[in-house]
Amino acid sequence: MIWQVGIVQACLAPVYCIGKTLCLEALLMTQIEPIRWRNDALELLDQRLLPGQEVYLRLATCLEVAQAIGQMVVRGAPAIGITAAFGMALAAREAGGSLHWRDRLREAGNVLKAARPTAVNLSWAVQQQAELARQQPDAAQAYTELLRAAQALLAQDINDNRRMGQLGAALLPTEGGILTHCNTGSLATGGYGTALGVIRAGFERGYRWQVYVDETRPWLQGARLTAWELQQEGIPFQLNVDSAAGHLMATGKIQAVIVGADRIAANGDTANKIGTYSLAVLAHYHHIPFYVAAPLSTVDFALANGAGIVIEERDEQEVRRCGAQEIAPTAVAVRNPAFDVTPAALITAIITEQGVAHGPFAENLAKLRP
Amino acid sequence: MIWQVGIVQACLAPVYCIGKTLCLEALLMTQIEPIRWRNDALELLDQRLLPGQEVYLRLATCLEVAQAIGQMVVRGAPAIGITAAFGMALAAREAGGSLHWRDRLREAGNVLKAARPTAVNLSWAVQQQAELARQQPDAAQAYTELLRAAQALLAQDINDNRRMGQLGAALLPTEGGILTHCNTGSLATGGYGTALGVIRAGFERGYRWQVYVDETRPWLQGARLTAWELQQEGIPFQLNVDSAAGHLMATGKIQAVIVGADRIAANGDTANKIGTYSLAVLAHYHHIPFYVAAPLSTVDFALANGAGIVIEERDEQEVRRCGAQEIAPTAVAVRNPAFDVTPAALITAIITEQGVAHGPFAENLAKLRP
Repeated sequence: MIWQVGIVQACLAPVYCIGKTLCLEALLMTQIEPIRWRNDALELLDQRLLPGQEVYLRLATCLEVAQAIGQMVVRGAPAIGITAAFGMALAAREAGGSLHWRDRLREAGNVLKAARPTAVNLSWAVQQQAELARQQPDAAQAYTELLRAAQALLAQDINDNRRMGQLGAALLPTEGGILTHCNTGSLATGGYGTALGVIRAGFERGYRWQVYVDETRPWLQGARLTAWELQQEGIPFQLNVDSAAGHLMATGKIQAVIVGADRIAANGDTANKIGTYSLAVLAHYHHIPFYVAAPLSTVDFALANGAGIVIEERDEQEVRRCGAQEIAPTAVAVRNPAFDVTPAALITAIITEQGVAHGPFAENLAKLRP
Repeated sequence: MIWQVGIVQACLAPVYCIGKTLCLEALLMTQIEPIRWRNDALELLDQRLLPGQEVYLRLATCLEVAQAIGQMVVRGAPAIGITAAFGMALAAREAGGSLHWRDRLREAGNVLKAARPTAVNLSWAVQQQAELARQQPDAAQAYTELLRAAQALLAQDINDNRRMGQLGAALLPTEGGILTHCNTGSLATGGYGTALGVIRAGFERGYRWQVYVDETRPWLQGARLTAWELQQEGIPFQLNVDSAAGHLMATGKIQAVIVGADRIAANGDTANKIGTYSLAVLAHYHHIPFYVAAPLSTVDFALANGAGIVIEERDEQEVRRCGAQEIAPTAVAVRNPAFDVTPAALITAIITEQGVAHGPFAENLAKLRP
């Protein structure tokens, strides 16, 4: 991997309309590019180093892509899917000249899928690319087509997120406290974001929201990434430890919870970052609506319910440490499930780019399929 | 303050009886002394440095004691109370020779009480010592009596905790997963612990428990202190991030939750470490019993309910950092409530050294008063 310091592009945001007063103060917004194709290689903004450093990793092989996914250089279900699509294109390029290029591409797909087990977008993207490759006469043509498809997927994801943002913002209250967990913004997607895209869209509409950001241990995606994104965009928020969510709800600070998803079963059961389920139970207890925002590709229609979702258990060191800081005695035993499953019954609505589904989800999610 | 590296004393634990088999393997247990009086000064095991370093701070003035409480050299409601009692004794010594020693002692009490606002044990201990001082003819006599009283309080606290441990262990299931939050062990008390004392007593009885320890952000009392104490004593446990509690309950890992308390209102509403309320709601949702263990001095009978409890908001840096590690962008806004209030209705029983109270707590806590 070649390390390269990247420059994040800045552009002027559209004029905001806050309340009834047209506000002409244009905010300096930053267009965050977590995934980009440059000079025949994939470049990923290394999310392990944020917010301290903004560094792009340059990946020229499929194996490097799989490693980057496994090591969480990139994370967030949609972003992982897009990254894997580029990984398949790189695999096709590497297989060029080999008589067995189709076998090698299949192996590459398996390596990519094994990098993270929970997000369905990963296997979905690999599958899509594998099918596209089957239709190609040779590896060179496969490389061209798979690269084009990956780039289209990236562009499509941003468009889908903007659509999801509009649908979600229309659903949420126009003022009050909005709690979110993990990072579901530009960094978790091709750009704009899913749950954070809805928050972004609300602010674009001038909603009077106070955003509350769970820090999201152990990886601190909230403290490191969501806080960084919101700060870049000038959206006001407050950071809190995950366990403060109940207190914030009980004291009337939260009017809605919105999260992303790593895998949604056909019945609406949703696997997402550890802590999502606790939030859903707390929201239910406090009669606060609980929303999931995710592209329809996150719905695994082959999976009847959440019982079949494999929950990734990650390295114990992630809990024993906080960044470089040792926080627990050496060698203590750790439980480190990366995800949990929120039953559909606790979810108010699932927001996708194809529309919003309310319960019964088995029926209403299926209706959204194009 | 003079820094001094302390040696933690080791002794042999009593023979354990596990299940029906008498087990002769005596465990090497460590007697942790968080608070001790040595050579005319108070020594506190600096809990900010654990588990990395075991260092005693030597405090010779009341102001140093107040600062140590405010900076969380010592924490945990009972331990803070005992420390403050020694602080009052030191104040009496400092006031020796002054005609206005009673005024100075009153001022010292106010300084101590202001160091942490939530724990009732602090103001309770200051009040007890102030009353004792009023009965003394001069400052020298007050010093002698207040020091004796502080030492008696320390000894009494350990005895009370052992009693609480027995009462609590009799109440809990004899096997299964026990989840605890924050640190309520020797380090939070004079020794042995409240909620962790109950866990300790269960293991002394040979219960087949799997202890789950919430890491307890932002101060990580679970990861740093509870994990350290349990490791010292050879009690098996697993550490988890706070937000994993819901997932652990939903997957059947937890059969009881037990926590300590910083202040209990007359009706049973309980202020405790941030995250306690979330756990209580989660336990309620999963039909898991939720226990509070605290000395009766933690009950503020003058306070009708939890609405009157002042919740300390601590420094934003505690959330922006994890130890020395910066984890969030500089200057992000933070909510850092140190405690939350769990309504009595979510509490199965309150375990005190005077007996166990079930609801209605207003009636049944009052009955425990000696």
